[in-house]
Amino acid sequence: MHQYKVAPGSAIKLAEWDPSDTDAAEDKSEGKDRFAQLNQRLETLQETLYAQAKHKVLIILQAMDTGGKDGAIRHVFNGVNPQGVKVISFKTPTPIELAHDYLWRVHQHTPANGEIVIFNRSHYEDVLIVRVHDLVPRSVWERRYDHINAFEKMLVEEGTTILKFFLHISPKEQKKRLQARLDDPSKHWKFNVADLGERKRWPDYIAAYEAVLSRTSTEWAPWTIVPADKKWYRNLVVSTVIVEALEGLDLQYPEPAQDLDGIVIE
Amino acid sequence: MHQYKVAPGSAIKLAEWDPSDTDAAEDKSEGKDRFAQLNQRLETLQETLYAQAKHKVLIILQAMDTGGKDGAIRHVFNGVNPQGVKVISFKTPTPIELAHDYLWRVHQHTPANGEIVIFNRSHYEDVLIVRVHDLVPRSVWERRYDHINAFEKMLVEEGTTILKFFLHISPKEQKKRLQARLDDPSKHWKFNVADLGERKRWPDYIAAYEAVLSRTSTEWAPWTIVPADKKWYRNLVVSTVIVEALEGLDLQYPEPAQDLDGIVIE
Repeated sequence: MHQYKVAPGSAIKLAEWDPSDTDAAEDKSEGKDRFAQLNQRLETLQETLYAQAKHKVLIILQAMDTGGKDGAIRHVFNGVNPQGVKVISFKTPTPIELAHDYLWRVHQHTPANGEIVIFNRSHYEDVLIVRVHDLVPRSVWERRYDHINAFEKMLVEEGTTILKFFLHISPKEQKKRLQARLDDPSKHWKFNVADLGERKRWPDYIAAYEAVLSRTSTEWAPWTIVPADKKWYRNLVVSTVIVEALEGLDLQYPEPAQDLDGIVIE
Repeated sequence: MHQYKVAPGSAIKLAEWDPSDTDAAEDKSEGKDRFAQLNQRLETLQETLYAQAKHKVLIILQAMDTGGKDGAIRHVFNGVNPQGVKVISFKTPTPIELAHDYLWRVHQHTPANGEIVIFNRSHYEDVLIVRVHDLVPRSVWERRYDHINAFEKMLVEEGTTILKFFLHISPKEQKKRLQARLDDPSKHWKFNVADLGERKRWPDYIAAYEAVLSRTSTEWAPWTIVPADKKWYRNLVVSTVIVEALEGLDLQYPEPAQDLDGIVIE
């Protein structure tokens, strides 16, 4: 899966990344088997992380509309204990949030020791939608890539593991998914007419994402470009990267505070 | 007063800075007159800042125990409207705060547009008391100077004015003030036996402060070393620097949302 990791300093052209790639799986059936095993493994790792209360884990998901952020969260974290896992969805900023710097609302939700926090959208919107829609002048958003790198570096140096995923879909796949939302009344709640306007800005968003991927994939907080046209493969990639990262930590249950030998519970 | 500003990149030796200096005032009486005028000026500036709701102002106060942080706040901000001015006192971190990075609790209290926030102690404690008492390894606190500079740069580039004051007292003056707290029952609540232990670490704190002043006085967030043995002069210096900084902003009352000419209130 390392082929999907963005090497720091590389100049990303998304046209060179195939959204329907399934290269690291034999086929869908084999991929789903592996995913099921990863799911179980993640459950154990998360429990240990929580018990040890030493490491912090921050997972950032970004994608075009219908890119599959909600689905990835639901499937990849299926079965983990919600006690130690928080999902934070960042929507349009409130007036109070807008009155502060753009990292203010984000920093409040970064993980504590033992926690996994998943950002469904994130501070990257402040160089994505904000850039595409000219919500602040270029001179302002241009500086934010450096802010973000420094912010994430501080988090990492203070004990956070950061994993960032761009769920990469094709415009064709987006069309299919938007149509499915229109056709199915149980999906109407997810259909937003404004998404059609955003869809027309596709090339602008691609350019903004290319800048994000090229400028903010760092040694300490790398991006993974996830081929996301096929949902089973998207889940497999995300889960593999997370499980490998957790296995790289020295996760272990903490020593009991006292020697428990010989203790009798009457 | 510019003589007290720490030029970025300078190597500060506090022995060369006289805590009882009163160079920028003719005498106490002249200094107090000027201070009274500054106080009135600050009141007007703060009201305009609040009405305009465009700029954010962060004032950071650091000092040895009895250095005069509380007194400076009380006198310099005497008369301003508490609606737009908040004082945040950072104490020993709680368990929840300790489970996050050290900037987490600080960032939550940074000012919004139109606000003045005063930090009574701050994130600098994480390279002061933490360093002196070895609360984290040197490898951890060594990285924090860079974090802090990057954090403050982000705040400034997103619209915050940051002013940092080190209230510089002599060990002799500290002794006098501690004794006064012992002698006066109405000051007993401020007397903390632990302060005596900290007093013994004076040279360690001086070294830690010298590192802070040398490494974190930046173009965007400079330190002022305030001669603080004389309270009237301390107040004069702090007030002058704040008023000058506010006068450098383009403070003005906002335009009314509508043309008010011809409006009749019946």
